[in-house]
Amino acid sequence: MESAIKTVVTQFLGSARGKENMDSKNFQKLVKNQLGNILSGSENSSAVKDMMKGLDDNEDGKVSFQEYMKLVGYLACQLSEQRAQGQTSTANGE
Amino acid sequence: MESAIKTVVTQFLGSARGKENMDSKNFQKLVKNQLGNILSGSENSSAVKDMMKGLDDNEDGKVSFQEYMKLVGYLACQLSEQRAQGQTSTANGE
Repeated sequence: MESAIKTVVTQFLGSARGKENMDSKNFQKLVKNQLGNILSGSENSSAVKDMMKGLDDNEDGKVSFQEYMKLVGYLACQLSEQRAQGQTSTANGE
Repeated sequence: MESAIKTVVTQFLGSARGKENMDSKNFQKLVKNQLGNILSGSENSSAVKDMMKGLDDNEDGKVSFQEYMKLVGYLACQLSEQRAQGQTSTANGE
């Protein structure tokens, strides 16, 4: 669990390349390379751009750590709902 | 990265034991067993209770997935700030 949180942080720091915010190009790379399996549309540049706009609360064209954590939270929520639905359909015998 | 997000989700689902929200006892266990290294005070039951109150937006005495993600976000932020500070003190040569 701790290493999972560290991975999330390290990924942002690596993708932001030492800067405080991630630019559009690095965000595209991150999504394509790291989130391709759990995020639909990750191969589609304009879909990723739209997603970035949705995250970009302060509209500076970059993704801050807080904005990135919003994406992580969103993906986690989505996964958790999927799992919960999966559980109910195979709910017998843990 | 994807597996890190999955770990965060699986941890909640496991700790909540199939329920939608995590009760106080299971939250204490989660913090003690999984976050002892990155969260100070995790061994102190009353500190963990206070933390849970801080997370518990709807004040139902339980930790929902959203409230749990607030903790994950907080820990990630803290880690990221620590790393950033570490970087500036050894900023020469990447």
